[in-house]
Amino acid sequence: MSEFPVSYRNRARRLPDRAAYDHEAVFAVLDAALVAHIGYVVDGQPFVTPTAFWRHGTRLYWHGSAVSRMHKAQAAELAVCVTVSHLDGLVLARSAFNHSLNYRSAMVFGTARPVPEADKAAALDAFMERICPGRSAQARPGSAAELRQTAVFYLDMEEAVVKTRAGGPHDDPEDLGQAVWAGVVPLAPRVGALEPDGPQTMPAPGHWAQAEGSAFDQVFRALQPSPGP
Amino acid sequence: MSEFPVSYRNRARRLPDRAAYDHEAVFAVLDAALVAHIGYVVDGQPFVTPTAFWRHGTRLYWHGSAVSRMHKAQAAELAVCVTVSHLDGLVLARSAFNHSLNYRSAMVFGTARPVPEADKAAALDAFMERICPGRSAQARPGSAAELRQTAVFYLDMEEAVVKTRAGGPHDDPEDLGQAVWAGVVPLAPRVGALEPDGPQTMPAPGHWAQAEGSAFDQVFRALQPSPGP
Repeated sequence: MSEFPVSYRNRARRLPDRAAYDHEAVFAVLDAALVAHIGYVVDGQPFVTPTAFWRHGTRLYWHGSAVSRMHKAQAAELAVCVTVSHLDGLVLARSAFNHSLNYRSAMVFGTARPVPEADKAAALDAFMERICPGRSAQARPGSAAELRQTAVFYLDMEEAVVKTRAGGPHDDPEDLGQAVWAGVVPLAPRVGALEPDGPQTMPAPGHWAQAEGSAFDQVFRALQPSPGP
Repeated sequence: MSEFPVSYRNRARRLPDRAAYDHEAVFAVLDAALVAHIGYVVDGQPFVTPTAFWRHGTRLYWHGSAVSRMHKAQAAELAVCVTVSHLDGLVLARSAFNHSLNYRSAMVFGTARPVPEADKAAALDAFMERICPGRSAQARPGSAAELRQTAVFYLDMEEAVVKTRAGGPHDDPEDLGQAVWAGVVPLAPRVGALEPDGPQTMPAPGHWAQAEGSAFDQVFRALQPSPGP
């Protein structure tokens, strides 16, 4: 089982039993998410930008506008922290202190670099295939002008850590008689009924049309084409 | 209508028509979320931590372990970026370039400071009331030892910006005949059936028990007690 190295950046200080560093655990959390929160620093000021991303092996990709702040900062290499989180439930305990959340989160550390112009079109095709397998053969491809407006970044994962919590409250034995309801309020993002944009000549993408009511993260994780390198 | 000041930090460079700076718009996005992604810098390295937060007026609060990295860094004042995002749908357009996401996001800039010891208990009570109105009178309150293990931070919002996208794809007129399905795959976090932790003597919190199947962000936003100053 491959593991990411552990440094001062990704070592879990608190509740280390909730942490994992192996590729499989990190990929499972990343592949269940479409959006990451990317942190970077410009002139000492932190910025956190929510951004759609995709993964190929230990490389993460995302795209943005060629006029964005991040793109301008990334003329040079840029240290980033890419964080993904899933909120799975509220954990209501019998004591205030033992209240918690159920979640899965991943923090990834690395250096963001621009994808070379010659590789941008293929990278963006891979993103569309990630969201909608088969779609890059149907949608009108990007023109040269459109590609120029799009910046694509990648990051090779240097370090990463996953933290998870699941299950019911962990109450102290002396609190079990407390007169208060205790348990979990489960939360999950769910796929709604597809909304066609006017009359359609083609059927809706099957993996989304058939997913109505399903948990988005499970459907999306199952679409990830490759288990990694 | 009160507005946040606009500086180099929060000015929307790209798609400014998707941006807003007024308190009402910022609060609406924040109050629909339980978890924010907090970005901060330690020795030049960015970190992004997913954290439960709550709001009172233009002040944000969050809590963490007294041994966390953030807490140690916050012995001094710490510049942070607090970002909240809601993913509302996949927007499948007829061209690759016009694919998009529906979302609501808020970025807040300010300085994180520790809540004084004397005010921590009241702040944590407010957090429990935020999630579960009435619960702070039922759950066993935190002991002195438990409070010592909990660090509470606050931030006065200096600048903020909201960005939103909603609705169907914006296709170029010449693409409307493209042989591909176009429309929106809606996404929303939903409340599941409550999971009691063993036998219960008290009824489940009504606002969560009655919310099964509802969109979490709408239920949670409605629970926010104060519209702010």
